Amino acid sequence: MKSGSYPDRHRTLGALLRAPWRVLEGRVYGAMAERGFPEVRPAHGVVFRHIEADGSRVSDLADRAGMAKQSMAYLVSHLEEHGYLRVGPDPLDGRAKRVILTERGEAVLKAAHDLSRSIEAEWALAIGAGPMETLKRDLGRLWDYLEAEDHQS
Amino acid sequence: MKSGSYPDRHRTLGALLRAPWRVLEGRVYGAMAERGFPEVRPAHGVVFRHIEADGSRVSDLADRAGMAKQSMAYLVSHLEEHGYLRVGPDPLDGRAKRVILTERGEAVLKAAHDLSRSIEAEWALAIGAGPMETLKRDLGRLWDYLEAEDHQS
Repeated sequence: MKSGSYPDRHRTLGALLRAPWRVLEGRVYGAMAERGFPEVRPAHGVVFRHIEADGSRVSDLADRAGMAKQSMAYLVSHLEEHGYLRVGPDPLDGRAKRVILTERGEAVLKAAHDLSRSIEAEWALAIGAGPMETLKRDLGRLWDYLEAEDHQS
Repeated sequence: MKSGSYPDRHRTLGALLRAPWRVLEGRVYGAMAERGFPEVRPAHGVVFRHIEADGSRVSDLADRAGMAKQSMAYLVSHLEEHGYLRVGPDPLDGRAKRVILTERGEAVLKAAHDLSRSIEAEWALAIGAGPMETLKRDLGRLWDYLEAEDHQS
């Protein structure tokens, strides 16, 4: 398995979830250079994954990613430098900065979704369309449960 | 959802895999302090996850985790300092270092497995025992496919 995920001693639920995700992430970000985005690396996934359509504050991105604000600011500054993001003052709080995807940044997001969908299609061929469908259905149920639980707490 | 994973714009397969894994990881490592292991943080998961029963070289741990050797050495040194690991010369290569879990480190691994199993049981109650069973079966099929594919490449 790419990303060396299989030496896990046991196939715990955590390992079963993490291993295919890491393969997927590795393939999606590994293909970015050939799609014309050579500066985008797996570490930048947390930015593209968590940024909102109308932009996000760096501190909110950091919270969502479970990272220090300084580490997020570093990733954001790299992506800004290469034209994937624009950073400006937050309209609601002049002291805060707001980050928004440029057209080039939006193109990365689209490429990531396209790549992800084609990998999913490949895996559906490998394990069968039925199992892929039940897999997504069961993961969706788990998602609903975790989201509801989070809103209660 | 804990770890702020739900602002994903779409429920892609990657998001569906990653979100529950992050909740699981957060809960397992969040409970380490009360289990008597206050120095163990989520970042150390890569060490406990990838270390082999008879010990591993730092460079192999770094490869498996997809990290720089220096970053892995930093995590290893923190865990060694707090009595979770022993670091000694590699019996097969005197210039390399080999890392092995102490009894205290093995206890962390056991606690992580116990916590993981009890979260899995809670989730099985939430989504149903049947869906949890098919979820693990389908993830197992995906694992088998990815492992076979990796050995071919």
